[in-house]
Amino acid sequence: MVLCDIGNTTYNFYSPKGSYRFYIDSFDPSSMSERVYFISVNPLLKQKLQKLPNWVDISPRVDMNKYYQTMGIDRIMVCEAINDGVIIDAGSAITVDVMEQGKFMGGYIYPGIEAMSRAYRGISELLAYSFNFEIDLDKMPKNSEDAISYGFLKTLYSEVLSHKKQIYLCGGDAKVFAKIFKDAIVDEDLVFKGMRKFIKGEVC
Amino acid sequence: MVLCDIGNTTYNFYSPKGSYRFYIDSFDPSSMSERVYFISVNPLLKQKLQKLPNWVDISPRVDMNKYYQTMGIDRIMVCEAINDGVIIDAGSAITVDVMEQGKFMGGYIYPGIEAMSRAYRGISELLAYSFNFEIDLDKMPKNSEDAISYGFLKTLYSEVLSHKKQIYLCGGDAKVFAKIFKDAIVDEDLVFKGMRKFIKGEVC
Repeated sequence: MVLCDIGNTTYNFYSPKGSYRFYIDSFDPSSMSERVYFISVNPLLKQKLQKLPNWVDISPRVDMNKYYQTMGIDRIMVCEAINDGVIIDAGSAITVDVMEQGKFMGGYIYPGIEAMSRAYRGISELLAYSFNFEIDLDKMPKNSEDAISYGFLKTLYSEVLSHKKQIYLCGGDAKVFAKIFKDAIVDEDLVFKGMRKFIKGEVC
Repeated sequence: MVLCDIGNTTYNFYSPKGSYRFYIDSFDPSSMSERVYFISVNPLLKQKLQKLPNWVDISPRVDMNKYYQTMGIDRIMVCEAINDGVIIDAGSAITVDVMEQGKFMGGYIYPGIEAMSRAYRGISELLAYSFNFEIDLDKMPKNSEDAISYGFLKTLYSEVLSHKKQIYLCGGDAKVFAKIFKDAIVDEDLVFKGMRKFIKGEVC
């Protein structure tokens, strides 16, 4: 079975052989002969892949009534992977979604590390610090560097903890955020777990 | 008595006649003949004003052991105005400070409306929404526009409420944030209230 999560810049593959990724510009999808089950947040690529019979788009199999129309398909898949919990997908944007007994309760979007860093720097060069993920969020800051890190992280932390649910972390920055969300389950393959639900029983 | 809070772009005056502001580039401080008690986050201007005998810098009167060295003098003044509470100064940056029985407990910095808007837009044009301050923060969002507004506002809200203290709002965006912090006391003159504490007993 080959699964592929197509983002804005890469094809992210998952197969029994392991995980690998290729840049969109340097990979020819017709070079694959196996059946590939895919999702794509890239609409142009999605159209292009519809012409290749071994590339199977699984997004039409999702019951969109559970979610909302403009919600990213990758975000939907991580939700499908979890029955109950808060899912933090930490990438260029951080999406936070809540699932309760298999039902999508809603979710929100928070800026990722790079975007938030630019936001602070854009206000003043005096705020151009790197974020400190070792910060003790139980103490109110008394220096500028921690004042920035706490502003970015404790606000998010407070909202996430308020749901009183198991926390799941995925996405490229999952391991970094695990320093803050110490009881979270880190699972970088969450999107693929969700995808597998939609190809059960098929030869793969 | 004339008080002046000098920011990066304006002189903000407060006097019995009312409040008024002048752009730094178009105002000559030597044109004032009254005594002016001032604070300045602008170090160059601070130096320049030291040559004018009727402009009195009150920042040396602050006991800096209560705060920290790189903390903005305007932020210190709003803290001095409050004995117990959480103070949100909502401008290009949002500073959140906690005072407990006259003691500064610490504080943090969060991006303001414009900076946060740029952060989302910088991730993707699909996230270029205006923030909705009418949003119901008790409901998890199920559309992209609310997902952005909730990400910006509910995170901040959750942290601020966790202190279980009276909330005070000041700064240029105080009235906008009052839609979210419904029980907050809005006081746009908080910085001047703090300043007045340092000129008690003087002829003004």
